[in-house]
Amino acid sequence: MQFKLLHKDSGSKARAGELLTDRGKIETPIFMPVGTVASVKGVHQRELREEINPDVILGNTYHLYLRPGMEILEQAGGLHKFMGWDRNILTDSGGYQVYSLSGNRKIKEEGVKFKSHIDGSSHFFSPESVMEVQRTIGADIIMAFDECTPYPCDYNYAKRSMHMTHRWLDRCIAHLDKVPFKYGHSQSFFPIVQGSTYKDLRKQSAEYIASVGAEGNAIGGLSVGEPADEMYEMSEIVCDILPEDKPRYLMGVGTPLNILENIALGVDMFDCVMPTRNARNGMLFTAHGTINIKNKKWENDFSAIDEMGITFVDTEYSKAYLRHLFAANEYLGKQIATIHNLGFYLWLVRTAREKIVAGQFYEWKTMMVKQMDKRL
Amino acid sequence: MQFKLLHKDSGSKARAGELLTDRGKIETPIFMPVGTVASVKGVHQRELREEINPDVILGNTYHLYLRPGMEILEQAGGLHKFMGWDRNILTDSGGYQVYSLSGNRKIKEEGVKFKSHIDGSSHFFSPESVMEVQRTIGADIIMAFDECTPYPCDYNYAKRSMHMTHRWLDRCIAHLDKVPFKYGHSQSFFPIVQGSTYKDLRKQSAEYIASVGAEGNAIGGLSVGEPADEMYEMSEIVCDILPEDKPRYLMGVGTPLNILENIALGVDMFDCVMPTRNARNGMLFTAHGTINIKNKKWENDFSAIDEMGITFVDTEYSKAYLRHLFAANEYLGKQIATIHNLGFYLWLVRTAREKIVAGQFYEWKTMMVKQMDKRL
Repeated sequence: MQFKLLHKDSGSKARAGELLTDRGKIETPIFMPVGTVASVKGVHQRELREEINPDVILGNTYHLYLRPGMEILEQAGGLHKFMGWDRNILTDSGGYQVYSLSGNRKIKEEGVKFKSHIDGSSHFFSPESVMEVQRTIGADIIMAFDECTPYPCDYNYAKRSMHMTHRWLDRCIAHLDKVPFKYGHSQSFFPIVQGSTYKDLRKQSAEYIASVGAEGNAIGGLSVGEPADEMYEMSEIVCDILPEDKPRYLMGVGTPLNILENIALGVDMFDCVMPTRNARNGMLFTAHGTINIKNKKWENDFSAIDEMGITFVDTEYSKAYLRHLFAANEYLGKQIATIHNLGFYLWLVRTAREKIVAGQFYEWKTMMVKQMDKRL
Repeated sequence: MQFKLLHKDSGSKARAGELLTDRGKIETPIFMPVGTVASVKGVHQRELREEINPDVILGNTYHLYLRPGMEILEQAGGLHKFMGWDRNILTDSGGYQVYSLSGNRKIKEEGVKFKSHIDGSSHFFSPESVMEVQRTIGADIIMAFDECTPYPCDYNYAKRSMHMTHRWLDRCIAHLDKVPFKYGHSQSFFPIVQGSTYKDLRKQSAEYIASVGAEGNAIGGLSVGEPADEMYEMSEIVCDILPEDKPRYLMGVGTPLNILENIALGVDMFDCVMPTRNARNGMLFTAHGTINIKNKKWENDFSAIDEMGITFVDTEYSKAYLRHLFAANEYLGKQIATIHNLGFYLWLVRTAREKIVAGQFYEWKTMMVKQMDKRL
């Protein structure tokens, strides 16, 4: 994998870059739509390619491990072939999902014992086994196995956990050194900075992560309930330490506003279920604020969903029609809202990139952050 | 509306025709996808147009009356504008849905009092009010208000009900004579033959319906649980009486096999929820039989969903992937199966038409009926 840093913003720490993998180019900043179980919920791969057009999507190791399972994915020749997606895929490590299973998992030095949320069956993830799972899934970018601490988190727990995440990282690297890639494609490995919301831990973790010299680096353990200002503070501390010539990925973030603020701090890559999950609940993100399409006020508003017309749904359907679909519990409503939101998120990071290149990012971001922070 | 009878099959009573409405051409035989509440469930209007490509779809008067309701549809300028569909729409009369509400409706000479399945609120449909509802929806073809009798049905009940349906028909016609079309589009009115599974009643009803000289005629009260042979017997009796120079529409039918057999008896138009509803349950119709995609046998079958490739989903996704989507309860599975099934149904009627024109319908139908009657 190669990363070229093409432009640096003068008014902020924002960067425009280009990641080149075996599979193709990823222009940064990028937002990665989440395809949890080998499907971006409610969106055809063709719509994803042609309408939303991300260079990379995300798959969840935990979910794919359970369904369809490793045997099927191996027989299929990996996730790309299985789901019919020939662009880049990044897989998380399962750390976050396992953390979310609180009560149904036991974290020890060796790894994590957990119960499936589907059938309660027992499973074990270790740094080594998760690398094997990700090799079998065959994503282009794979993540280190980490513990994602909750918010708030006791300092001593956060510190112990961070050190364990570092030791797990060493084990991931040691394991990957011993095994070849599957399917003839290379896989780039990203370690993850932890340390909860403690500055000294974040600094220490970022330094450790930077020291391993990976092809890209990630920031985990944020967007777990902490105030946005704390998130930005941690993000800034970490970005300032992580190497400038490698991409930086902030995991699980966030609102359109969070994304612009973190781009300004030097983050290059994002993923979040928010555009897809909120879409299914009738919440639309637009350049002028958010819309709750279930609201009665849209009942007879026959104007386009979004005059910007980023994707075909925006001008093909009216707000009144979309509101009706939600009121009648018709799944097409969720499909339309999902395409709209993902289209908007991709527009946002693409426009951010253009503004960085044009030297206008800071002004634009300041205007957008204000403009988007409204309920329509 | 004009109807041109273009070809008659020599080996059966099958016909190829062309219906011309204000909105455009409908080539017959035709299958009309069901868009119950202003949406063919899980299918974008664009996919419907470009992939499935029916000349006409169906909307349900009962459902549209309740949601989005008449006020919204009138403000929108009718259903076409509301949902963004510029081809033909046919609306049923609500008779079938009201019949399905058994226990929550009371049928009298004046009309039907019923309770909404959504909130239990009380409503009243009369022949006159249902014509008004259909005028406001603005479909290109609208149906008479009828009583759809259950199966089996007592002879005396069926007879009384048929006569009431005929009296209701007179009231529908009398009402429509008094009122202009809305939205500047003409609406063609089809009366409905009833008579349960009694030959003499069906004959009598067909003669009455034929006598009113409508632009097209429908056969109702079938596909309600009777054996297929009885359906075919009734369909044949009625088709032999209904005028040859008008289209014949068999309501709510049916399996691919039912459709071919009824085409052979002289039916031109069909609608049914089967391709869409069964799709959502994981049942696929193909030219070589039906597939239950939830079956474990498809788990690692990486071949195309359907090598025929009628729609893009057939070759873009594998059986194993589609099976996984159903196993993981991902809605994309339902979307894919729905597009596949509707594509297949439209292929079936289009091919039937080609075979009629080529004088090969009977042989083809005989072969297909055998071939499709399998579980794969």
